[in-house]
Amino acid sequence: MSDSASSVRLEKDLLGTLDVPADAYYGIQTLRAVQNFRLSGVPLGHYPKLVVALAMVKQAAADANHRLGHLPTEKHQAIVDACSRIIRGEFHDQFVVDMIQGGAGTSTNMNANEVIANVALELLGHAKGEYRHLHPNNDVNMAQSTNDAYPTAIRLGLLLGHDALLASLDSLITAFAAKGVEFAEVLKMGRTQLQDAVPMTLGQEFHAFATTLGEDLARLKTLAPELLTEVNLGGTAIGTGINADPGYQLLAVQRLADISGQPLKPAADLIEATSDMGAFVLFSGMLKRTAVKLSKICNDLRLLSSGPRTGINEINLPPRQPGSSIMPGKVNPVIPEAVNQVAFEIIGNDLALTLAAEGGQLQLNVMEPLIAYKIFDSIRLLQRAMDMLREHCITGITANVEHCRRQVEHSIGLVTALNPYLGYETSTRIAKTALETGRGVLELVREENLLDEATLDDILRPENMIAPRLVPLKAKV
Amino acid sequence: MSDSASSVRLEKDLLGTLDVPADAYYGIQTLRAVQNFRLSGVPLGHYPKLVVALAMVKQAAADANHRLGHLPTEKHQAIVDACSRIIRGEFHDQFVVDMIQGGAGTSTNMNANEVIANVALELLGHAKGEYRHLHPNNDVNMAQSTNDAYPTAIRLGLLLGHDALLASLDSLITAFAAKGVEFAEVLKMGRTQLQDAVPMTLGQEFHAFATTLGEDLARLKTLAPELLTEVNLGGTAIGTGINADPGYQLLAVQRLADISGQPLKPAADLIEATSDMGAFVLFSGMLKRTAVKLSKICNDLRLLSSGPRTGINEINLPPRQPGSSIMPGKVNPVIPEAVNQVAFEIIGNDLALTLAAEGGQLQLNVMEPLIAYKIFDSIRLLQRAMDMLREHCITGITANVEHCRRQVEHSIGLVTALNPYLGYETSTRIAKTALETGRGVLELVREENLLDEATLDDILRPENMIAPRLVPLKAKV
Amino acid sequence: MSDSASSVRLEKDLLGTLDVPADAYYGIQTLRAVQNFRLSGVPLGHYPKLVVALAMVKQAAADANHRLGHLPTEKHQAIVDACSRIIRGEFHDQFVVDMIQGGAGTSTNMNANEVIANVALELLGHAKGEYRHLHPNNDVNMAQSTNDAYPTAIRLGLLLGHDALLASLDSLITAFAAKGVEFAEVLKMGRTQLQDAVPMTLGQEFHAFATTLGEDLARLKTLAPELLTEVNLGGTAIGTGINADPGYQLLAVQRLADISGQPLKPAADLIEATSDMGAFVLFSGMLKRTAVKLSKICNDLRLLSSGPRTGINEINLPPRQPGSSIMPGKVNPVIPEAVNQVAFEIIGNDLALTLAAEGGQLQLNVMEPLIAYKIFDSIRLLQRAMDMLREHCITGITANVEHCRRQVEHSIGLVTALNPYLGYETSTRIAKTALETGRGVLELVREENLLDEATLDDILRPENMIAPRLVPLKAKV
Amino acid sequence: MSDSASSVRLEKDLLGTLDVPADAYYGIQTLRAVQNFRLSGVPLGHYPKLVVALAMVKQAAADANHRLGHLPTEKHQAIVDACSRIIRGEFHDQFVVDMIQGGAGTSTNMNANEVIANVALELLGHAKGEYRHLHPNNDVNMAQSTNDAYPTAIRLGLLLGHDALLASLDSLITAFAAKGVEFAEVLKMGRTQLQDAVPMTLGQEFHAFATTLGEDLARLKTLAPELLTEVNLGGTAIGTGINADPGYQLLAVQRLADISGQPLKPAADLIEATSDMGAFVLFSGMLKRTAVKLSKICNDLRLLSSGPRTGINEINLPPRQPGSSIMPGKVNPVIPEAVNQVAFEIIGNDLALTLAAEGGQLQLNVMEPLIAYKIFDSIRLLQRAMDMLREHCITGITANVEHCRRQVEHSIGLVTALNPYLGYETSTRIAKTALETGRGVLELVREENLLDEATLDDILRPENMIAPRLVPLKAKV
Repeated sequence: MSDSASSVRLEKDLLGTLDVPADAYYGIQTLRAVQNFRLSGVPLGHYPKLVVALAMVKQAAADANHRLGHLPTEKHQAIVDACSRIIRGEFHDQFVVDMIQGGAGTSTNMNANEVIANVALELLGHAKGEYRHLHPNNDVNMAQSTNDAYPTAIRLGLLLGHDALLASLDSLITAFAAKGVEFAEVLKMGRTQLQDAVPMTLGQEFHAFATTLGEDLARLKTLAPELLTEVNLGGTAIGTGINADPGYQLLAVQRLADISGQPLKPAADLIEATSDMGAFVLFSGMLKRTAVKLSKICNDLRLLSSGPRTGINEINLPPRQPGSSIMPGKVNPVIPEAVNQVAFEIIGNDLALTLAAEGGQLQLNVMEPLIAYKIFDSIRLLQRAMDMLREHCITGITANVEHCRRQVEHSIGLVTALNPYLGYETSTRIAKTALETGRGVLELVREENLLDEATLDDILRPENMIAPRLVPLKAKV
Repeated sequence: MSDSASSVRLEKDLLGTLDVPADAYYGIQTLRAVQNFRLSGVPLGHYPKLVVALAMVKQAAADANHRLGHLPTEKHQAIVDACSRIIRGEFHDQFVVDMIQGGAGTSTNMNANEVIANVALELLGHAKGEYRHLHPNNDVNMAQSTNDAYPTAIRLGLLLGHDALLASLDSLITAFAAKGVEFAEVLKMGRTQLQDAVPMTLGQEFHAFATTLGEDLARLKTLAPELLTEVNLGGTAIGTGINADPGYQLLAVQRLADISGQPLKPAADLIEATSDMGAFVLFSGMLKRTAVKLSKICNDLRLLSSGPRTGINEINLPPRQPGSSIMPGKVNPVIPEAVNQVAFEIIGNDLALTLAAEGGQLQLNVMEPLIAYKIFDSIRLLQRAMDMLREHCITGITANVEHCRRQVEHSIGLVTALNPYLGYETSTRIAKTALETGRGVLELVREENLLDEATLDDILRPENMIAPRLVPLKAKV
Repeated sequence: MSDSASSVRLEKDLLGTLDVPADAYYGIQTLRAVQNFRLSGVPLGHYPKLVVALAMVKQAAADANHRLGHLPTEKHQAIVDACSRIIRGEFHDQFVVDMIQGGAGTSTNMNANEVIANVALELLGHAKGEYRHLHPNNDVNMAQSTNDAYPTAIRLGLLLGHDALLASLDSLITAFAAKGVEFAEVLKMGRTQLQDAVPMTLGQEFHAFATTLGEDLARLKTLAPELLTEVNLGGTAIGTGINADPGYQLLAVQRLADISGQPLKPAADLIEATSDMGAFVLFSGMLKRTAVKLSKICNDLRLLSSGPRTGINEINLPPRQPGSSIMPGKVNPVIPEAVNQVAFEIIGNDLALTLAAEGGQLQLNVMEPLIAYKIFDSIRLLQRAMDMLREHCITGITANVEHCRRQVEHSIGLVTALNPYLGYETSTRIAKTALETGRGVLELVREENLLDEATLDDILRPENMIAPRLVPLKAKV
Repeated sequence: MSDSASSVRLEKDLLGTLDVPADAYYGIQTLRAVQNFRLSGVPLGHYPKLVVALAMVKQAAADANHRLGHLPTEKHQAIVDACSRIIRGEFHDQFVVDMIQGGAGTSTNMNANEVIANVALELLGHAKGEYRHLHPNNDVNMAQSTNDAYPTAIRLGLLLGHDALLASLDSLITAFAAKGVEFAEVLKMGRTQLQDAVPMTLGQEFHAFATTLGEDLARLKTLAPELLTEVNLGGTAIGTGINADPGYQLLAVQRLADISGQPLKPAADLIEATSDMGAFVLFSGMLKRTAVKLSKICNDLRLLSSGPRTGINEINLPPRQPGSSIMPGKVNPVIPEAVNQVAFEIIGNDLALTLAAEGGQLQLNVMEPLIAYKIFDSIRLLQRAMDMLREHCITGITANVEHCRRQVEHSIGLVTALNPYLGYETSTRIAKTALETGRGVLELVREENLLDEATLDDILRPENMIAPRLVPLKAKV
């Protein structure tokens, strides 16, 4: 069967024959896809959860087919063993098809079918390529179409990776919350529209970062199962289930749930489920939301650490690398900068995915490979960026406590706290004078004896400025 | 106070004085904003639910302030009466500020404050502009900042319009589902990747449209309250609640819930809630998802009605307008075409909103006016497009039953149904011959006596091709 | 012919009859479109240049048809007179179809045909609607299809508005350049990555704004004629020119060039030109580029004017409206903020347009109405935003000269200028000590007698720090 | 210096020391970046033209510094030799920093500096890491800042790869044009809005594909030099050229032009050029335009090849891989499908790049690494997709000539050609009857003796239907 001693083996399909490398576990259809699609350079194996999910789908289908009497025990066992090895992390380098591919995922599905078949063949004592003993299509792909196996694997792959994403987010939230506690007493100016507003604490600011990401953690936790657990396995070609055993769908999905430990359930309308990409659009939209929040937070970190002398300079980010070859001593906020860029990438991914979702036609969305690529890529980038941000930046942030306090004392915004006591007219006059002369608000209030020291002290106590307080009624205008 | 007899009145603010049209209920700050921002040409009054929500917020705040003893009864009653009239639909033409504006919504908030103040002044027997009797800032805006009143009003405005959006979507789903029933017996070819696949019914296809939109209805129903009912009213300038009465927040939010009939609740972290735009990002992402689904459906409707002679021509859309001045008798699918364009607009809106959300800095998102504009615009467009699609297209669709059936009979895809009986090899040979000779699959099967007529009849009965069936074991390969 | 006394007239088309308001110059096909497409709420008349361009196209076609002997002199003259009045600005309120419409612009084209026909009918002494004397299709639309007349009008409309766009941009550049001159001597710190870098002048910074926009002015000037002057008039339905007189294309385009004063020329490949939207994609991409630059500039203006006490505070933007009801004396950078939002809108428009361009199929792009809408909208927004920015912001900017200078003197970044004299090691040590102790770089250099005063003075002269200088060789490390 | 026998060497920078792999040519700053930025997984070496361009910049700077007397001859020669080897393709695996990185490209610049220094050190007979003999910063980076060297290298890298992009596009155009000639006689129906319109030839259709891409070829050819040849080398940190020799800028740019063979010229306003990303925004916008056109073309190819029995089926795409495991004989248009997805990816890249461009602040755009990544990625994808489309699809397309002709003859659209002879009223009646009865237009015309056979033959000769013709005056209505 082979061309030379052992370097290749000849395989055959509808279009003819090709030389497959002898040591390859993939086969001719995979090879055709590799030759057809030399595009992103990112192979399937780049996303291990997707590979594992494919193997789980194949195992579940084999289990169901065996139970229904369509797949002999020996073949079934070999397929199950092959799938188990892939699930454990073996053979991932054999998943070589480009993530961007035509054919609506057929090449991905066949890559899985062929690798599993050849691993199983070896387990059965046969040589790779001897498909008469166990066939990629007839046996491994039995009762499946790419159009149900592939979307099911994508959903499952996302679910399998979800806990790690949540864990990264959770750790980042914890890091922000810890800084919220650490900086609870650091009084500083709040800013709206980049203009001095009223006092707050640095702890409140970091606590808000934790809060806003906490909302995303909660939502991601509930959204993933809501969106991804309903699978169309059993729909075969277009969701009508043509040629499938009536008992197959429930059995296969149940087995897949058992194998994966995920609460999978069969789609109610298989025609709809075959072409619908709505779950991915919303899930990507949610990832985009988290990316937007991270980008906003990193913009803030860069603003708050700007300086050291001619910026805001309220916090110090841990130095990670020398900042300039020409400017001695310069250190730059490189970690938040990288997070910003990851966020932009994720927003771009969401757009590409949206276009792909819109491009579906009739009974199938042929752009699903791009959808899978972009959503797995966004998750990986998001997770890595969050880990980087926490490890290399957040945990090492320190506050310039005295500088923060001086800025509050020096600020014209203090006058807002005096407003209920002095009235709007007087407050405005004081504010204007301070701005024009460069003098301090308190200095001017004292000079004019507008309030006694005890009252001033009381008003300006941090705990009275950073939360609602009971304004003395006599002081109301 | 007025410049000439009655055409203008002079108003004053920190920057000086301006002539306000005498019959205007808005005041000087609104006028400044109108002069500053001549951009989109779309005034606030274009979105009635936003205007109503602003009035409700003002009424709730007045109620709380009155209850806490800060707002005298007479003023309170006048403000409440003014708000009620706006809620009933009066004075909406006085909300004249451009939807695109700087100032993070201050101009919108002041537009509401000024209109309410002047309506209230007239109710109290004073002239417009006599703010010494009742003041836009001191009285109408009491205990509020734009930074809490405005985001609260946006959320409330979205909630107030939500039932109408759901109703439009629900009616559209009903229309699709009715066609699903009507076309339940219309056998046709399913297509994947625009290539002939296997048979299905036109009813299944339309039912799938109903299903996919039904998922969005369910999600929109739960998502809106989850995302929008938590409001930051009471946070004042930056969420610290500076200068606010400690009892104010709960009272004001409770009153707002009562007035609006919406289950509003106070935000837990007001610092975070002041600048966070995450709810809008995800809500817009959900609207985008519905738009993507509608666009895909309309693409399908255009494909299915293509022809009449040289296209797919399975269905007929009701003619809505002559299609061409040069081509007699041509009628075009103008309604789905318009829906496609609305979908693209909504996707563009989602991007603009995303950019605005990312652009927030420190304690505020100053781009919130654009966020409000884009989300209200997307909702209005989506609702109108769905109504248009239902009324002017879906309800009038008819099927070309005979053409659909002939295409199935003529199709090579039929061979898939024979696959379990003939085996993959023979099926492929038959398919090839049919393709090359232009003959029919059944004709060739009969010619070769591959299956008896009774079996053929059984296999090709519609109900056996459009759903899973128990394949006779003897027929398996 | 009319329903009641005079309020309506009955018109007829292929689909039946409708009552058209008696005083309307538009007719039944326009009315159908109004009833079909209640979407954006933005009518054609909102974009005067588009309306004028439509009238010019109709006049040019009538001229050509008359010259070729197909259109009688009397009809020709009436059509020309009607077009002239529309070109002068009359009847624009009769262009009532929604900018978002199905039908690939047929409704827009028919709106123009009907208004021109009815104006012409009145000029000829007939009543509106008496189309037997002069017909919207047969006469006004003679030798045209929507598919050539409409794209031609869009291109022409863009060209007609181009000078005004360039003028707004030019004025803005002039304003920035003037500030560049005004601030030429204001020494300040440059910043990279929001960190203190090395000195520059505020004049250099504003001059760079002028330069970067100047590049866009130059490019817009050349790009518009390159992209938009090639028109497909004469291609009729799909570019084959079916039913058109062979002499028509050249004559009509030449007349259109004469009437409009624009250097229009016939497309070489009319099939291609009928469906190609590439010109709009690139033109919108260029508008997006200008929007991105404006957004970046406005971000900078907001950063540079941040404070007044706890920000960068190098410049003051002219106050345009009171900034806060709760914070006395606060003034916000509302104008740049509005420009940012306009930029985001334009980026969103570019996306919607891109999706529409991608959605073209076979011989036509049916999404062209959205393309027209978004590109006209972007231009209008861009122009208004630039005018606003210039008038209400740039011309009134002042510099905080002393503050800028103090920041330079106080900056650690000064050490970069000393680097060639002290060497990298010593410079780094000085920088670190300065940062840790809060002391000044010069103070430390003087304390250690590292350089004599004359040398220091020479190095730190502004003109020596803000441009390349010949470093004394002896000072090199 | 090394930790163990030979596996690592110790290097030092401002932040401390790190163990660098002994065989690595990169150094400590590269290693820090690798540890900091584990994000996209795509290293610099993935884009050879960027690596080559970096080496050319370093060589040009060294040449200028040597000529100005700042860099000794021995060091200069070693640096030049090292750069030459990189330019020839060696050491690209040493460019290991992630394409997504903070620091505005400092890590990329230092990766180049360190690799060049260590290669040069070995050439000089020293060990890697012995920087006292030749230093990455002091010598290789002399007179440069990342802020001028890096943007210059990006521009140059794009120019270096431009010819290959143009060649791919040119070959694709040639392939389309050849099909235009091959199919010149294949008469078929044109379609607008997916509805039957009027006849054309398949050759015209493919020729239009060549034309539309030809416009992009011409524009890309002129746009790249216009946008990319102006470089900011010599601006150092922020464009003021601080610490640079006044003669350096011109010399360095001239040398870079000589070395690269590209017509580079110095930027006029270096302050502006340091932070301006406009060139990339427009260049990416142009790539997006080409992607949109390719996507539209591939949509058309998929429509035209739809079927084989229940679609349009005018052309056959060459089969590239089996299309389905469940549907015998099915072959899918996998190549155009993959191109569509590449186009969506490029549109997403353009968005990410746009966001990065907007995110620049003050004197630098810190997001430039993402900009570089996305634009190089788009170019590579575009080029690969065009090659794939040409090789694996276009050249093998065949036409179904008889089917195309039958569709024309059978079409109602033929009536348009009869319109000038029969008049609009009669034509419409014939069209309606044909549609309702399923009969042919010609059949009905003959039945009613509306035109004699000679006239009919003349009208319906292909050459008379696919281009303008002189309509007999007598036939006009």
